[in-house]
Amino acid sequence: MQRQLFRHNKQITTTSGLCPNYLQVNMLTLPYDYAFEFLLFCNRNPKSCPIIEVLEPGVWSPVTAEADIRTDLPKYHIYEHGRLVGEELSIKHYWRDDLVTFLIGCSFTFEKALLENNIRLLHQEQNKVVPMYKTNIECHSSGIFKGNMVVSMRALEKDQIDKAIKITSQFSNSHGSPVHVGNPEEIGIEDINQPDYGESIKFENHRVPVFWACGVTPQNICLNAKPSLAISHAPGHMLITDQLEKLRA
Amino acid sequence: MQRQLFRHNKQITTTSGLCPNYLQVNMLTLPYDYAFEFLLFCNRNPKSCPIIEVLEPGVWSPVTAEADIRTDLPKYHIYEHGRLVGEELSIKHYWRDDLVTFLIGCSFTFEKALLENNIRLLHQEQNKVVPMYKTNIECHSSGIFKGNMVVSMRALEKDQIDKAIKITSQFSNSHGSPVHVGNPEEIGIEDINQPDYGESIKFENHRVPVFWACGVTPQNICLNAKPSLAISHAPGHMLITDQLEKLRA
Repeated sequence: MQRQLFRHNKQITTTSGLCPNYLQVNMLTLPYDYAFEFLLFCNRNPKSCPIIEVLEPGVWSPVTAEADIRTDLPKYHIYEHGRLVGEELSIKHYWRDDLVTFLIGCSFTFEKALLENNIRLLHQEQNKVVPMYKTNIECHSSGIFKGNMVVSMRALEKDQIDKAIKITSQFSNSHGSPVHVGNPEEIGIEDINQPDYGESIKFENHRVPVFWACGVTPQNICLNAKPSLAISHAPGHMLITDQLEKLRA
Repeated sequence: MQRQLFRHNKQITTTSGLCPNYLQVNMLTLPYDYAFEFLLFCNRNPKSCPIIEVLEPGVWSPVTAEADIRTDLPKYHIYEHGRLVGEELSIKHYWRDDLVTFLIGCSFTFEKALLENNIRLLHQEQNKVVPMYKTNIECHSSGIFKGNMVVSMRALEKDQIDKAIKITSQFSNSHGSPVHVGNPEEIGIEDINQPDYGESIKFENHRVPVFWACGVTPQNICLNAKPSLAISHAPGHMLITDQLEKLRA
């Protein structure tokens, strides 16, 4: 079982392409004091922060996965007052009774559907974490939580873009359709070869960059909001749930 | 303007059938201490509590309506520790800086679409507040917020039911498709002529009762949860917004 390997630190990899039938989710854990404002932030920004599940204060066992979210992700990032202070393989020693955990949809979930429709994914072929970028697309703010959207990028053949839009628009729990196609500069990305998270990929000729809202957005927002503590998955290193991805009914 | 009449108490009526192009919403106002648990309750029960807007602590002016939610509904109910302690035409003297207001979708919004498809609505013809009932359908709980769903009932001709389901399922922000058709007892309603909220209607021959999740549910839930203070619209007396009803894209 994949989560067991992560729990016992027998494997530490990006989860892109793993367990392709199952919903993968972003994780963000915050002290209760921030929970209302952050939940409202997610409600106001469903495209970047589609809520899959919220675990009440102190709860580390979700409904969507028979898992311990403190150990069963491959890698975590720890933020204090908006500063990255550690990268960890377990967060058991950080755990507190007032921590509220948000599980948020992830674009990895729709990658299988793209592959099945013969849309090649270069980052998987090149064995890289999908490249992610900070943009100038403003989120709707909620209290201290404000800032810009982070997007993930997949470089597609021109004649496959329409198909990719159609497929991903059905995955409303996993960011849905792209937020931008074509021109990185238009959404504030200066250098496509310098992603802010994940890894750069080698473009093939004539491919067009296509951008989807990304569940790393809440991490970026947390950097601005500077809560006393925030724990998240390391970008690209998700929680794999037991839930089969459901398309919008 | 309809809201002006309510503001100055020149008219005090149910809003069913008024301003038929505009989204009508249920209102529930709670102290900040309850806001996270209640917002999570709404997220977990989108069918009875579809969130249209959340007003942050102390805010009384929504985005969806150029209104003062303290005066612009026809009638309010005040609850203290789960007990109805007052029925008011304004809540200005109850207002506090820590009050968080939730605007929740309402089935009145889809009534126009039903009428336009030649589905007659007896409660409007009989000039009654739509009958609403407590049921045995359990909501997903969140902290202190737990209990059963409240439903609104419309009695339809047998051959119109499929059409009504199809129409209302498009209004995902306003409770969507019915939760039950046919047998009131099956969902815990003992006497269809004794609604828990609203008014009883005179059935015509051969009509079948059809039940929709109702935005009075959160009021019912509040009776159980017994928060120190809760302010809501009086059942049937909604906030009329400036927003045209949007169908699901």
